[in-house]
Amino acid sequence: MDLTTLEKLKQGIETIVPTNGLEEKLKLAEKEKRPLIIKFGMDPTAPDLHLGHAVAFKKLRDFQEAGHEIHLLVGDFTACIGDPSGRNTTRPPLTAEEVKKNAQTYIDQMDKVIDTKKNVKILFNGDWLNKMTFADVIKLLGKATLAQMMQREDFANRFENNIPISLHELVYPMVQGYDSVAMNCDIEFGGRDQLFNCLVGKTLQEAFGKKEIGQTVISMPLLRGLDGVMKMSKSKGNYIGLTETANEMYGKTMSIPDDLLPEWIELTTDFTPQVKADMIADYKNGKVNPMDLKKKVAFDIARQYHGEEAAKAAEAFFYKQVQQKGFDTKEFTSVSMASLPVATQDVSLVDLAAAVHPNESKSAIRRLIESGAVSINGEKRTDPFSKLNLQKGMKIKIGKRGFYQLEA
Amino acid sequence: MDLTTLEKLKQGIETIVPTNGLEEKLKLAEKEKRPLIIKFGMDPTAPDLHLGHAVAFKKLRDFQEAGHEIHLLVGDFTACIGDPSGRNTTRPPLTAEEVKKNAQTYIDQMDKVIDTKKNVKILFNGDWLNKMTFADVIKLLGKATLAQMMQREDFANRFENNIPISLHELVYPMVQGYDSVAMNCDIEFGGRDQLFNCLVGKTLQEAFGKKEIGQTVISMPLLRGLDGVMKMSKSKGNYIGLTETANEMYGKTMSIPDDLLPEWIELTTDFTPQVKADMIADYKNGKVNPMDLKKKVAFDIARQYHGEEAAKAAEAFFYKQVQQKGFDTKEFTSVSMASLPVATQDVSLVDLAAAVHPNESKSAIRRLIESGAVSINGEKRTDPFSKLNLQKGMKIKIGKRGFYQLEA
Repeated sequence: MDLTTLEKLKQGIETIVPTNGLEEKLKLAEKEKRPLIIKFGMDPTAPDLHLGHAVAFKKLRDFQEAGHEIHLLVGDFTACIGDPSGRNTTRPPLTAEEVKKNAQTYIDQMDKVIDTKKNVKILFNGDWLNKMTFADVIKLLGKATLAQMMQREDFANRFENNIPISLHELVYPMVQGYDSVAMNCDIEFGGRDQLFNCLVGKTLQEAFGKKEIGQTVISMPLLRGLDGVMKMSKSKGNYIGLTETANEMYGKTMSIPDDLLPEWIELTTDFTPQVKADMIADYKNGKVNPMDLKKKVAFDIARQYHGEEAAKAAEAFFYKQVQQKGFDTKEFTSVSMASLPVATQDVSLVDLAAAVHPNESKSAIRRLIESGAVSINGEKRTDPFSKLNLQKGMKIKIGKRGFYQLEA
Repeated sequence: MDLTTLEKLKQGIETIVPTNGLEEKLKLAEKEKRPLIIKFGMDPTAPDLHLGHAVAFKKLRDFQEAGHEIHLLVGDFTACIGDPSGRNTTRPPLTAEEVKKNAQTYIDQMDKVIDTKKNVKILFNGDWLNKMTFADVIKLLGKATLAQMMQREDFANRFENNIPISLHELVYPMVQGYDSVAMNCDIEFGGRDQLFNCLVGKTLQEAFGKKEIGQTVISMPLLRGLDGVMKMSKSKGNYIGLTETANEMYGKTMSIPDDLLPEWIELTTDFTPQVKADMIADYKNGKVNPMDLKKKVAFDIARQYHGEEAAKAAEAFFYKQVQQKGFDTKEFTSVSMASLPVATQDVSLVDLAAAVHPNESKSAIRRLIESGAVSINGEKRTDPFSKLNLQKGMKIKIGKRGFYQLEA
């Protein structure tokens, strides 16, 4: 086994279960002269990807570059069911069409990090799960006990605190585990909160006699978002989307708290391990102004997704804003009034702002308004529900980076 | 509603859930001018029926005579799966053929109590359960929570005592409950140990919108067996089988402890409620010798299953045995050596005794031998594994009622 490759593959991984599982599977691949199959589950209900997702994509890219196969799993089976208990209304069932469309959107965004045309397969778990009979399900369920499921922390906590656990929820780890049996994968990538389910997959591969030693499970560290506290997520509004402009990426990165620098250097940049280590050391020693490190990170992020030229322009744009503390009309993004999904008369401020600035959730925008970060024609507006009439030339400023001007 | 009918239907029932559930359903039937559908699950893995089963059959007969429909449910779905966890080796999966055969044997025996040609339907739950997809199963499981399942006492106890509960076991009450949805029954008969599962059926009928108020659940009291302690069951060897001879039925009944008399009078005889009440009062007052009451019960049981004449002959046979304390050769049942499923040379005593006396389990016979209750040609034999050669005229005596003589 090539130790440099092993070193590169291991770099940045948070957890490998079992500890020697990566060496083990690489040796196996070498012995059997075949690539490893890496399972990566994509969530077909969340088509908006951000730098948090990219952390795992970058690691997948390392495996891909070492010659292994990425099998992307679309969980269409459960997405099309929704929540049968009716308690979780935030996840309505999707149609097969919607799932396919979301999966394509997901792949398109993933493609910004990883070449999805190379050694990448896309699988839909409905292809095997929809073929299972009730008797097959019973046989699958016979492979695990309630006590094993209750080792999952959230189940144990909910049971203890009398928070309902629907029976189908108990079955979902088995569904995910059975996917690993059907896919016959060697390694499964999972978020930290997916470790339990991934280990069920390992157990089931062994129980079904698919592998003597079931899959190795790998999890990457969580990336905290712009607020410096919560995990980066769309619902928290603390994210940088993979489809955002270079200006947005640069500007948002400049807004992160200093103490996020080590993890952002490690997880979001494409610097070499040595450069990363030096930068982190510089931050910790206080040798370098954190602002200068942040500029390097912001530049590298913009460069990865938009190229060198766009990154330079984003840097220049950012400095102009900061230095001028005012704004040149030519930097405002022009928005066609006719294209907006709102009325032209008596629109509430929050609806208008959400319409011109669709990357942010409506509740995030409402908070921005209330915090005084939104102005119309240079005048601060703090009531989200105040009414406006659209006018050509109207300038809408949202936060530090959203500058829009209405056009006919 | 005819109150005499209601009274008769209620007679002897141990539990009705909800309490007014029988009146409710009878009113509904009257209003909708239709018979009630009574669900009765038969166990296709236990084809040897006894007086314990007959307790429920007699109550079913009351409903049948009042014009309602009996829907016998054969649980072929689970019987054909067996135990997928592999822990319960006593229940190997059955083939569809075996289930059909066992069901027929069951019906044949049930026919001794109830006219199975009249208002009786036989249903196999595989007919609907085998059609369910994994997605249907998930939707079904979404209708209940883990906490609800854990209200079943044995689940709660096992979980607390770290005795494994396989996930498929948690699903079985939902399977049984779904049967009630598919059958659209009004009343389910369940043993005392089935009450929980039957109530799941009530809940599911309501959840699936099949009935505004789900099925009423009825359970009959348990009949204790010949030992006077345990529930009558084949595995305990404390039973009177529905296919046993009048002599066996009479003799075995005479062997029960006195204090079983009230429940046997109530549950096994066909006397009128008034006669039953009088007999029980006589027993409790000590007015009548318990032996005389037992004779009446023994006679009535033999009469129900073999007719008046056979009952008289059984009574006479019993007295001859008791009075003579010896046995006339002509009372020995003749057994053809050629028909026995054992070799003619070097047969172990236990194998031979089991072959001539197939109503008893091999382990029960071994215990009988060890307790000195078995003799060959009048000579007591206590080693179950001693070897014998079969000979014409050989007399084999097993317990108090098994007398056999080998014939060429």
